[in-house]
Amino acid sequence: DCPLTLIAGPCQLESLDHAQMIAGTMKEACEAAGAQYVFKASYDKANRTSLSGRRGMGIEAGLQALQSVRDAIGVPVLTDVHTEAQCAIAAEVADIIQVPAFLCRQTDMLLAAGNSGAVVNVKKGQFLAPWEMVNVVDKIESTGNTRILLTERGVSFGYNTLVADMRSLPEMAKTGYPVVMDATHSVQQPGGRGGSSGGQREFAPVMARAAVAVGVGAVFIETHDDPDNAPSDGPNMIHLSDMPELIATLMQFDAVAKSHPVKI
Amino acid sequence: DCPLTLIAGPCQLESLDHAQMIAGTMKEACEAAGAQYVFKASYDKANRTSLSGRRGMGIEAGLQALQSVRDAIGVPVLTDVHTEAQCAIAAEVADIIQVPAFLCRQTDMLLAAGNSGAVVNVKKGQFLAPWEMVNVVDKIESTGNTRILLTERGVSFGYNTLVADMRSLPEMAKTGYPVVMDATHSVQQPGGRGGSSGGQREFAPVMARAAVAVGVGAVFIETHDDPDNAPSDGPNMIHLSDMPELIATLMQFDAVAKSHPVKI
Amino acid sequence: DCPLTLIAGPCQLESLDHAQMIAGTMKEACEAAGAQYVFKASYDKANRTSLSGRRGMGIEAGLQALQSVRDAIGVPVLTDVHTEAQCAIAAEVADIIQVPAFLCRQTDMLLAAGNSGAVVNVKKGQFLAPWEMVNVVDKIESTGNTRILLTERGVSFGYNTLVADMRSLPEMAKTGYPVVMDATHSVQQPGGRGGSSGGQREFAPVMARAAVAVGVGAVFIETHDDPDNAPSDGPNMIHLSDMPELIATLMQFDAVAKSHPVKI
Amino acid sequence: DCPLTLIAGPCQLESLDHAQMIAGTMKEACEAAGAQYVFKASYDKANRTSLSGRRGMGIEAGLQALQSVRDAIGVPVLTDVHTEAQCAIAAEVADIIQVPAFLCRQTDMLLAAGNSGAVVNVKKGQFLAPWEMVNVVDKIESTGNTRILLTERGVSFGYNTLVADMRSLPEMAKTGYPVVMDATHSVQQPGGRGGSSGGQREFAPVMARAAVAVGVGAVFIETHDDPDNAPSDGPNMIHLSDMPELIATLMQFDAVAKSHPVKI
Repeated sequence: DCPLTLIAGPCQLESLDHAQMIAGTMKEACEAAGAQYVFKASYDKANRTSLSGRRGMGIEAGLQALQSVRDAIGVPVLTDVHTEAQCAIAAEVADIIQVPAFLCRQTDMLLAAGNSGAVVNVKKGQFLAPWEMVNVVDKIESTGNTRILLTERGVSFGYNTLVADMRSLPEMAKTGYPVVMDATHSVQQPGGRGGSSGGQREFAPVMARAAVAVGVGAVFIETHDDPDNAPSDGPNMIHLSDMPELIATLMQFDAVAKSHPVKI
Repeated sequence: DCPLTLIAGPCQLESLDHAQMIAGTMKEACEAAGAQYVFKASYDKANRTSLSGRRGMGIEAGLQALQSVRDAIGVPVLTDVHTEAQCAIAAEVADIIQVPAFLCRQTDMLLAAGNSGAVVNVKKGQFLAPWEMVNVVDKIESTGNTRILLTERGVSFGYNTLVADMRSLPEMAKTGYPVVMDATHSVQQPGGRGGSSGGQREFAPVMARAAVAVGVGAVFIETHDDPDNAPSDGPNMIHLSDMPELIATLMQFDAVAKSHPVKI
Repeated sequence: DCPLTLIAGPCQLESLDHAQMIAGTMKEACEAAGAQYVFKASYDKANRTSLSGRRGMGIEAGLQALQSVRDAIGVPVLTDVHTEAQCAIAAEVADIIQVPAFLCRQTDMLLAAGNSGAVVNVKKGQFLAPWEMVNVVDKIESTGNTRILLTERGVSFGYNTLVADMRSLPEMAKTGYPVVMDATHSVQQPGGRGGSSGGQREFAPVMARAAVAVGVGAVFIETHDDPDNAPSDGPNMIHLSDMPELIATLMQFDAVAKSHPVKI
Repeated sequence: DCPLTLIAGPCQLESLDHAQMIAGTMKEACEAAGAQYVFKASYDKANRTSLSGRRGMGIEAGLQALQSVRDAIGVPVLTDVHTEAQCAIAAEVADIIQVPAFLCRQTDMLLAAGNSGAVVNVKKGQFLAPWEMVNVVDKIESTGNTRILLTERGVSFGYNTLVADMRSLPEMAKTGYPVVMDATHSVQQPGGRGGSSGGQREFAPVMARAAVAVGVGAVFIETHDDPDNAPSDGPNMIHLSDMPELIATLMQFDAVAKSHPVKI
């Protein structure tokens, strides 16, 4: 098994400079710790809690920013898509395109993502059991694309609350595809602030540590130099300056986990 | 308050004749009981559990079938839409277009639905608290469209299970819009049969009775002359021959409920 | 099927006069509406959220108060028991002894309750599926006592929240025993105020109406002349002055429900 | 922080020889890995799913067996208590007495446990939020006893299912008391086999690894030389022969976790 990959970035793209700054800082921290790194950011937030939530740069400017990160920083990039038509367009720049959790059962979306040729990361819906992801995988595989990642981002647990079930990680790994733990969205409190989502930033490292000890291919973390003023997901983001130490710790857990794999 | 409306039909369109047969039977039963009636059927099932699930007639043939129901039977029709582009097209025929539960936070979808000019019925996501529907309403209202229906169809409760929280009905009614109880999907067992969803048909009347006693504008029920062989949602559908008695009973509860409204 | 029974009272006993006042008011309201009535109150609250919560009169004074209600008002009384030893003692006065939800799987408690000879009402645990109540019934029946009531009082739904699943009512009725809907505890927010439980009083009638329309033997409601100052469960109690109208409405739903029983 | 403690044993006591065999094997494995060890077994199973479930040796014979483990093997022992009266009796032998999850809010039980002078381990109820444990702690502390352990054993997640929320570990640690992860009960499927509980033994190491990486004082594991024929909890027990390797792995995670404590 390869060492852990970090998929991390500022949730939504804000500017070329900002994207490159985050990517550069993260790349350095990951290299120092022996982790692989993928930059993540969204060009559009298509399902904000309320209409007044900032949506982002849009697909054209966003993809340019992602391209600049690839070129200037030299790291692969991941972005999420929101319609079938966006899949092929985003795949021209992004190494990995991501199907959002709410859309994880939309058949045409999964087919378009598969047909894009990019690696496809699917977030498990908040309403889905981990063993249902095999049906999601089947839909993508039907396109001939077998470069698939499956992400845990929490499951509905009462109102405005998610819980991350650690059993879902080995359960999804039964598909044979790498499993990703989304440590920041799984501590989101959806709609928890009325017009926006709340979050419990302090618990994101808890989720990351637990998942890495169980054994995962990657950890997904949203990070920002100023989380309290980030345009989205601020409440559950980890401060950029806290990332190097967290990554170093995760790599120590990863080394133990990879040398003693869980058998399910 | 008006008497109860029944929104009912065969889940997915199968043929013109079948659609008209169901619509005609239901219209007669509703008229006999003093209920209003809206025919419901889907031209596409865009989020089947597995790729092998039958998807339906497609939008063109489906809308023709819906038009034939309007013309031949003389009842309003409801159908669900799956992309922004479908909203305006479906609204040319459908009196009510429905935003599926998984898509209930997709901003562009809600705007397109609102802009279609049709009545918009939004199913509350299985991952959403009832008080979050006010944000959904805001998105639609921003288009100037205020003909909105809000539907309870169950909320995630552990894996492969939904529960219908009766508090959600008066909670959503605080928006001022009519509330619909989806009595058949709320007894669905999502993904409960591995490659397809299970259901507990026998409990659908339980949900309908409970909701009508709380007080709702409409009840949504999928019905079929041969549920065990219906192309989708068979396990939770009510047999067409059981509908007249159920509707008559619901109208008796509705009369009591409407004369003693719940005050929240 | 008999008309609906109301099991109602002030949660915890405060004084003889207070108990008789509530019992008298409720008896009158029930007689006016054609409902049967059972007075309910606790002599001890053995599982308060925090140590500082008031526990009640104690078993000796409490049973005297209950006896006075039986004698002066002429209604049957229900009280809850907290240890095996209390079962026989409480049964000397109480017509119905109640096993609390947290204790519903304690085998010795159920045996002691059955052996008391009183009618035994068991509240379904917040952690229990309705189909598990058959095991609870078996334990009581093993004593030869077959006068059993089964009560729905909500099931855990995330943290500090309960949800009432209306399917549990016909599910528990499969045992053949009368089912009771606890309309006030099912809108409790356990531990929701830190050192005490919160509640949503306004939704208690919603639960009662829904359950009666599904079909139940009894509705359980905590009521008080001054809920905001009641020593326990105030946030979810119904004001005594609101009871007559609620009971009258419930009886109308009950008449419809009993003439059209749900078939499961 | 001290190295990890293992609390482990055969769920219910079967015989002196069996108890000593398990305790001896476990002691050796823990010493080899540098872990502390506490033997755990029950003299009574007071809340079996069904009446026919085997209950155990009873308190007298059970405490003798526990005493023999202390004497012959030289390890501390933990056992669970089921009534107030048992607290003082069990505390004569047991180093740690345990309040079962269903009883974790019974005030008199917590006071009796505190007054016994033994270390008190409280299992968090399946219906309780982790932040409510502070009220449990207050009740015990009121007796002057501040030797308290708090155990996560899963929280209700729909019917017949538990989920372990890793956030509960640091949340309970805010009380200042050591936190224990019960890795086997948290993968129980309560009532999942109709007349008995099911379980997912294969996921118990997942829970243990995750929790140790987050950082806990102890892990609680039920283990048996023949889990499929154990009198209780067989489906979720770990085979005794798998324990040495698991403990060794956990100690590696523990070393990383203790040198990089989570800050909440």
